[in-house]
Amino acid sequence: MAEDDTRSLAEAADLAAQLRVDSIRASTSSGSGHPTSSLSAADLLAVLVLRHLRYDWNHPSTATNDHLIYSKGHASPLVYSVLRATGQISEEELLTGYRRFGQRLQGHPTPVLPWVDVATGSLGQGLPDGVGIALAGKYLEKLPYRVWVLCGDSEMAEGSIWEALDKASHYELGNLVVIVDVNRLGQRGATALGWDLDAYARRTEAFGARVLTVDGHDLAAIDAALHDVDSGQDDRPTVILARTVKGKGVAEVEDSPDWHGKPLPGDLAEEAIEALGGVREMTVTSIAPPQAESVEGPAESPAESPATSSDTSSDTSSDTDPAATPDTGAGAEQHSSQPDAATATASSQRSGAVMPRYRHSDRVATRKAYGAALVALGEIDPLVVGLDAEVSNSTGAGAFAEAFPDRFFEMFIAEQQLIAAATGMAVRGFKPFASTFAAFLSRAFDFIRMGAITGADLRIVGSHAGVEIGADGPSQMALEDLAMMRSVLGSTVLYPSDAPSTVALVAQMADIGGISYLRTTRGSYPVIYGPAEEFPIGGSKILRSNGMDDVTVVGAGVTVHECIGAADLLAREGIGARVIDCYSVKPIDVDTLAEAVRHTGGRLVIAEDHHPEGGLGEAVIAALTDVEDVGALSVRHLAVRDLPGSGTAAELLEAAGLSAGRIARAARELFDERDAEHDAQGNVR
Amino acid sequence: MAEDDTRSLAEAADLAAQLRVDSIRASTSSGSGHPTSSLSAADLLAVLVLRHLRYDWNHPSTATNDHLIYSKGHASPLVYSVLRATGQISEEELLTGYRRFGQRLQGHPTPVLPWVDVATGSLGQGLPDGVGIALAGKYLEKLPYRVWVLCGDSEMAEGSIWEALDKASHYELGNLVVIVDVNRLGQRGATALGWDLDAYARRTEAFGARVLTVDGHDLAAIDAALHDVDSGQDDRPTVILARTVKGKGVAEVEDSPDWHGKPLPGDLAEEAIEALGGVREMTVTSIAPPQAESVEGPAESPAESPATSSDTSSDTSSDTDPAATPDTGAGAEQHSSQPDAATATASSQRSGAVMPRYRHSDRVATRKAYGAALVALGEIDPLVVGLDAEVSNSTGAGAFAEAFPDRFFEMFIAEQQLIAAATGMAVRGFKPFASTFAAFLSRAFDFIRMGAITGADLRIVGSHAGVEIGADGPSQMALEDLAMMRSVLGSTVLYPSDAPSTVALVAQMADIGGISYLRTTRGSYPVIYGPAEEFPIGGSKILRSNGMDDVTVVGAGVTVHECIGAADLLAREGIGARVIDCYSVKPIDVDTLAEAVRHTGGRLVIAEDHHPEGGLGEAVIAALTDVEDVGALSVRHLAVRDLPGSGTAAELLEAAGLSAGRIARAARELFDERDAEHDAQGNVR
Repeated sequence: MAEDDTRSLAEAADLAAQLRVDSIRASTSSGSGHPTSSLSAADLLAVLVLRHLRYDWNHPSTATNDHLIYSKGHASPLVYSVLRATGQISEEELLTGYRRFGQRLQGHPTPVLPWVDVATGSLGQGLPDGVGIALAGKYLEKLPYRVWVLCGDSEMAEGSIWEALDKASHYELGNLVVIVDVNRLGQRGATALGWDLDAYARRTEAFGARVLTVDGHDLAAIDAALHDVDSGQDDRPTVILARTVKGKGVAEVEDSPDWHGKPLPGDLAEEAIEALGGVREMTVTSIAPPQAESVEGPAESPAESPATSSDTSSDTSSDTDPAATPDTGAGAEQHSSQPDAATATASSQRSGAVMPRYRHSDRVATRKAYGAALVALGEIDPLVVGLDAEVSNSTGAGAFAEAFPDRFFEMFIAEQQLIAAATGMAVRGFKPFASTFAAFLSRAFDFIRMGAITGADLRIVGSHAGVEIGADGPSQMALEDLAMMRSVLGSTVLYPSDAPSTVALVAQMADIGGISYLRTTRGSYPVIYGPAEEFPIGGSKILRSNGMDDVTVVGAGVTVHECIGAADLLAREGIGARVIDCYSVKPIDVDTLAEAVRHTGGRLVIAEDHHPEGGLGEAVIAALTDVEDVGALSVRHLAVRDLPGSGTAAELLEAAGLSAGRIARAARELFDERDAEHDAQGNVR
Repeated sequence: MAEDDTRSLAEAADLAAQLRVDSIRASTSSGSGHPTSSLSAADLLAVLVLRHLRYDWNHPSTATNDHLIYSKGHASPLVYSVLRATGQISEEELLTGYRRFGQRLQGHPTPVLPWVDVATGSLGQGLPDGVGIALAGKYLEKLPYRVWVLCGDSEMAEGSIWEALDKASHYELGNLVVIVDVNRLGQRGATALGWDLDAYARRTEAFGARVLTVDGHDLAAIDAALHDVDSGQDDRPTVILARTVKGKGVAEVEDSPDWHGKPLPGDLAEEAIEALGGVREMTVTSIAPPQAESVEGPAESPAESPATSSDTSSDTSSDTDPAATPDTGAGAEQHSSQPDAATATASSQRSGAVMPRYRHSDRVATRKAYGAALVALGEIDPLVVGLDAEVSNSTGAGAFAEAFPDRFFEMFIAEQQLIAAATGMAVRGFKPFASTFAAFLSRAFDFIRMGAITGADLRIVGSHAGVEIGADGPSQMALEDLAMMRSVLGSTVLYPSDAPSTVALVAQMADIGGISYLRTTRGSYPVIYGPAEEFPIGGSKILRSNGMDDVTVVGAGVTVHECIGAADLLAREGIGARVIDCYSVKPIDVDTLAEAVRHTGGRLVIAEDHHPEGGLGEAVIAALTDVEDVGALSVRHLAVRDLPGSGTAAELLEAAGLSAGRIARAARELFDERDAEHDAQGNVR
């Protein structure tokens, strides 16, 4: 940092007062928000943005810009006050746009604003996301930016904070600086540790951080700590513990447990603003980020950074385009990210012969096919990154880890950090594929949900789905994951039945916007499709049909094989089954499904290795209900309705009613019923 | 501990060899399982069960029994080998029942076995559950039992472990002892910290534990540490860090990263058993648990323990009933727990006048009604316990915390531990109600899922559902929670629209088995129902109907009020709407719904403040599809389909298409369509 870029501590005091005044004004104007949580951190932010944050505010997409993440997202009045001080939003927007309908200054910050990397507001997520960005900066982009994260003290109770610090020290993220605003008060009262900064210091130090403790309202002390960061970083992440006072600067609310999330009433706000010296018009100027060339890269850097061959890391620090957008590809409105040049090239190459191929005689687990496909993708697309939560030898990701050790990140058994790291990498323009057992993705649901609000393009892969896994028992069986992933805003949910369809879907995942999910199976099953077959997202495949079908039988993943078996059984009895492989669960191929049930008199059997709620069955039924001329349906919905135990895959599928025999029986029942109805009306079928 | 109860270290060595031999035999016999993860902990367990665990094996329901939780549930061969040594299962069961279909010796232990408190297998959960049991023991039951938890080192990477240790020290759980089997190897290779026991010691100490470090294969050292626990406990939880060797005792697999989760092949197993001295028939005798009277209760104990007035804490240490079942009320097959005497009394009192009442002119938030109802329940049912994740002033639980401080547990911002603590308390027979913002329950999905496998009766309450919350924005809006909670095995999902229905449903939750979920709303809405109205689980209410209805309009929670408004709008146009309040989302009242759509020509509008997948809409449609004679449906499914921002509740409901006006418009469209169809056929309506 060049000293002449920066401004004096007297100016920082002025800025801190302005941030306080503006935080009060924004929240009082909207009658909603968290001013006291903003006031405690105003001094910290004033010194940071005025003297240490290397950030070109006019060009937030600048590759070497530092990153500033508000993990305590409820301090949004402070976030927006900083943006006004940096000239990015107007006073009018601050006073009329905060927390209002249709406005971008939302209750908690989201990447609708180009200066915001990730949506926060679910506590304990900003830091894990920041670890993801810091991983990208150090190992993938090799850029000299730093990642600053402002945490609240309450959120230090979240386990995800400790997963993040654990990984930050394991991966030697000296580029990560965490500032903890220890104002001792949570929403409903005191935190468990209060102002015991020593306790926080012991914990963060034990987790491998370099820890600095400061009075969070002593500008010189704050500055000294941040200067220490500027000049003295090693390979440890830095944690700055700042003792602060909630509501600092407004005597009436200081250190009071009764003022969380409450704007000051108009008269109190006026007095407070007066006492703070009134409205100011100070402007923060950018501190130029360093040129990428100036970075002293770690000697142990991987040889070739994927990012250096893409526009993600192009030197845009001299970028003068005022319309520059963030380089995240994310943003709440942007679920379909624009493919960049590198992606477009990769996409076109993807149609080539590099993807793995399988023969009809092969028996292959889709989780293995996933690994093979990811390796192939890695060859042609330098932005593809792999992450796994200590089960890469089971999920298939191990093949990628072996082929591309520089682009694979072991997150150990920490599923929240797994998804957060992927989110941070996606924010930086990479294409993370994050895998673990599908059952354990439930650990990270809140992170996936918030990833959707961030608008991050996350590829998530869950293996060992359903009772099919067999002997390991119910703790390892994902039976809720389709419901979970379908419920995520804008998500894509894929569930292939064989190796070629897996490969085709994984290839497309590289280019899907938003949250995409691939569900894979433990066991090895026959290859169904030829290598030239295409599997468009939102499509399906008709696997059995003779034009005279009597019943529609729908499966996905492992049940497709059982549905084929059921069709064979039914054929012997003269019943024609149209078997549909619903490999795209969301979006679902409603046209093919509607055509099938029209053709088969509304008779429909659906078989899924999942609980009955929220999965394939409800997806199919809900989609058909949207079609006006489908008519009445006669449905048998086969799903896992009881608690399974251990057993073989065959035993457990049979017990759950998902075997070929049970599917055929369900289909047969639809005819028996129809017969019974006809009988009641004096007719015969 | 009376010394004469215990056996010598030489016997412990014998027992350790037997546990190793049996772990090998069980897993080799089934061709599946984790013998090497069992071998590393065999010495620890041998010394523990032979000399320190105060447990009446013949009477696992004994109230003063210690608890032994295998957080590393994949060490199930060791679990079952211990059970054989204690005479609880036969050699035959061990060798023919392990991991087989229909057997109770599952891949990971579950409470199908009366000696198992909680299902494990999703790592990082046994310790948090154990914290819940220890909380119950210290503060609710005031019994002298200890809670022993065997953790793997890999799972120390889960944030939930640190949430658990944080709470264990905050609540001064000197009755909790964590033994960490540091064998340095995870599933796919070395852990991040390997054998760096100092690092583990720094971390666990910083989190407030008393830490002992031992060689996990030195029986005398183990015994000294456990003796230290017996004699020297203070108010800190104890963590024993044991340096162990994975596969210890079988030279071919010791400390090898290639043998995770792999049984030894038959020949290697035979050699290993031979080298270990062959099959043994040693029997572990019980060490009598102390009498409840002998407990030196903490001086600061709450005055009246709820449990002392119920049979949960009755002195059953002299219980000689050989058919005694665990006192958990849990168990995989037991989703409906048997109400005990105290419960039956409470239930009968519940129909009395103590529950809060509301007038039609009141406007009350259902979250506030929840708090009031919980206080009333607390008055009549001493087993009711409240827990919250630092938002009790928002969820309504604060009222219970004030009324019953001795039965309320603040879990701070740690949602995983919130649910785990509730699970532990449910295991001990209490009736925990755990609340936080519904959005943040997604943080605990894996714990809820595992709670269902445990068979725990958990009452979960999520406030601030949907876009209705307004200004705080999408990070705080639960829009996936109905999908999540419906997908849980055996769950009950409730979503009341007003205060009286909330009270009635909360009262019933006290007696529901399995996982029950109540979704509440932020804003205040008019009271709809009278105080005498009943709201059976699985029921619904028809709020508008004149016998000549043209369209069925279904809502739940906040949308019920909009549906009523829509019916009023439609009535002015001569369209009769039958409005149904689907307060019970799972199970759903299919009869009333079917009757309504039959009556209204299949015309159906569903409005839910939730994403379209997995919530009320799909629940209704799937249920109707199960009814054979319902006929074709014409459905408008109104749900939140785009990313919301900030705004007022009214603005956001309107934008999501959930306002009375938008619901009425959707209903109108169903007639327009019907008209258009008729027109196409040359008819007029």
